[in-house]
Amino acid sequence: MQLDQICLPIKDEMDRLDEVMRGHVRSNVSLVTEVAEYIIENGGKRLRPVLCLLASKLVGYTGDQAIQCAAGLEFIHTASLLHDDVIDHADIRRGRPSANAKWGNHISVLVGDFFYCKSSDVFTRTGQLEIVQLITDTITATTEGEVFETIKSNDIDIQEDDYLAIIRGKTAVLFSAACQIAGVLGKVSEEMQAALAQYGQHIGMAFQMADDYLDYVSDEAKFGKTQGKDLREGKLTLPVIVALRESSESEQKIIKEALLSERLEEFKFKEVVGILNKYNALEHTRELANKFAQDAKEDLKIFKPSLAKDSLITLADYFVYRSM
Amino acid sequence: MQLDQICLPIKDEMDRLDEVMRGHVRSNVSLVTEVAEYIIENGGKRLRPVLCLLASKLVGYTGDQAIQCAAGLEFIHTASLLHDDVIDHADIRRGRPSANAKWGNHISVLVGDFFYCKSSDVFTRTGQLEIVQLITDTITATTEGEVFETIKSNDIDIQEDDYLAIIRGKTAVLFSAACQIAGVLGKVSEEMQAALAQYGQHIGMAFQMADDYLDYVSDEAKFGKTQGKDLREGKLTLPVIVALRESSESEQKIIKEALLSERLEEFKFKEVVGILNKYNALEHTRELANKFAQDAKEDLKIFKPSLAKDSLITLADYFVYRSM
Repeated sequence: MQLDQICLPIKDEMDRLDEVMRGHVRSNVSLVTEVAEYIIENGGKRLRPVLCLLASKLVGYTGDQAIQCAAGLEFIHTASLLHDDVIDHADIRRGRPSANAKWGNHISVLVGDFFYCKSSDVFTRTGQLEIVQLITDTITATTEGEVFETIKSNDIDIQEDDYLAIIRGKTAVLFSAACQIAGVLGKVSEEMQAALAQYGQHIGMAFQMADDYLDYVSDEAKFGKTQGKDLREGKLTLPVIVALRESSESEQKIIKEALLSERLEEFKFKEVVGILNKYNALEHTRELANKFAQDAKEDLKIFKPSLAKDSLITLADYFVYRSM
Repeated sequence: MQLDQICLPIKDEMDRLDEVMRGHVRSNVSLVTEVAEYIIENGGKRLRPVLCLLASKLVGYTGDQAIQCAAGLEFIHTASLLHDDVIDHADIRRGRPSANAKWGNHISVLVGDFFYCKSSDVFTRTGQLEIVQLITDTITATTEGEVFETIKSNDIDIQEDDYLAIIRGKTAVLFSAACQIAGVLGKVSEEMQAALAQYGQHIGMAFQMADDYLDYVSDEAKFGKTQGKDLREGKLTLPVIVALRESSESEQKIIKEALLSERLEEFKFKEVVGILNKYNALEHTRELANKFAQDAKEDLKIFKPSLAKDSLITLADYFVYRSM
């Protein structure tokens, strides 16, 4: 199933989302508006809005604040991408020049800050301190997670637990907040709110793990990024962590060399993939992603059947079995 | 009068401030705590906390939230300095290695984001949405102001109005928020809140203008930064803007050359200062700073006499007539 089919219950909201986002980023300083609109136009899958809007439908919330929060969530994601691209000196984002390539680091850092401000503005305007606090805690955890990832980025002895902590921080906590906000808006019981938060956390783990798996096996044209990008950038994700743990000393040496090389030749990449396959490292990653996806589905048991529930369930499988 | 004399009415709070700040930045990720504590320890004049605490005394607020907000304000200032240092590739901050020099750009951008999160956390915990909204609007205006400054940074035709808009954004709005928050905490009338906001705005303008004036005339040992730093960095502040407007074509050429030079020789710097003096550009800047300081004092007329009021009045003159 494709993402737009999954999103049918929230089609109206998704159609309006970009306009709502654009409405928030108008600024007296025209360059701010220009950069912000460039980034909004450049798209993305809008997964955090999707989660928030579907979860809102699930809990029967029909007010206007769901789409506002959806926009705020996407602003947070956008801000972190802007800062990431500056840090990584990335020239390309989603097939077009990155903001830092187009306007320089200075403007990118500042417009990133601007997006954080706008998210704060959106959530403050809900008038619900509970939501503001939830978002603040989430961004804090995300930032801490990114620092932890930076510390561990050259640590060849990184363990599976560290990896899980990193992806929880950099992906799962925001997914979790996206779902939990819907629970707050819908004023559901604490038990249901906790279930939504758990669902978001689990589906976030599944998504990031699948992303890290797909990086090694995906069709480049579909996935939109170079195969083996993580290995080339020396990024230690689960497939490599598993292989380093299981493989022989000589094989470990090959993987380490690949991670540290400035330019990775194609045959060396294939050699590493061979080792990953020998120890079922990719299979293990996909299986663990699937386990998290199944846990996510379980979390929804508490809710009665609905179209939105079907979509949230399908989304869990989609995250693991998508090819892009 | 020295700053610590002005701060006598808030001595207890200022003595506790660093400890309160340190309490907020503890993180599970030890590097985050380490970087944050390094920055807190590195000090600064804590002007935004001073304003918030003095204004709180002025309105008779005695609760614990003033010092919390003071910490939050300093976090915002700290976050913007961290991002500025990354953008400017600054190696030194307050006489010690900058965070980016010590830990790299990546960590600095993230810890900057972390400080923004912590400020958001502090203000959210006041339980007052009015304060959260005020801070959100303030950071937004600051960020927009910095983008506007970036746009204008190479524009030799920049006008005095643009300069005023820039310093309002980069300094005065946060000073204004620092004072206004005290009004919210003290639950004073709208008229008094507006007076506090105005005072903060005026004193902020005076402070930044005096800073830009002192850059040309200050005693390096006392002011803590190289004389003529702005000119050397090609920064167009009011003294230069006035001189460019008033001087002859040949003199304008000398100033422009100085602004654009990679390395500015001492005699060229003195030549520019000569031109600034010829057209009273430094005097004009100081006079305008003084005018804003006098306006700030006027704003306080509405409040009855108190030690805190005396300090806020003295602070206005201190900002203009300090030598550092």
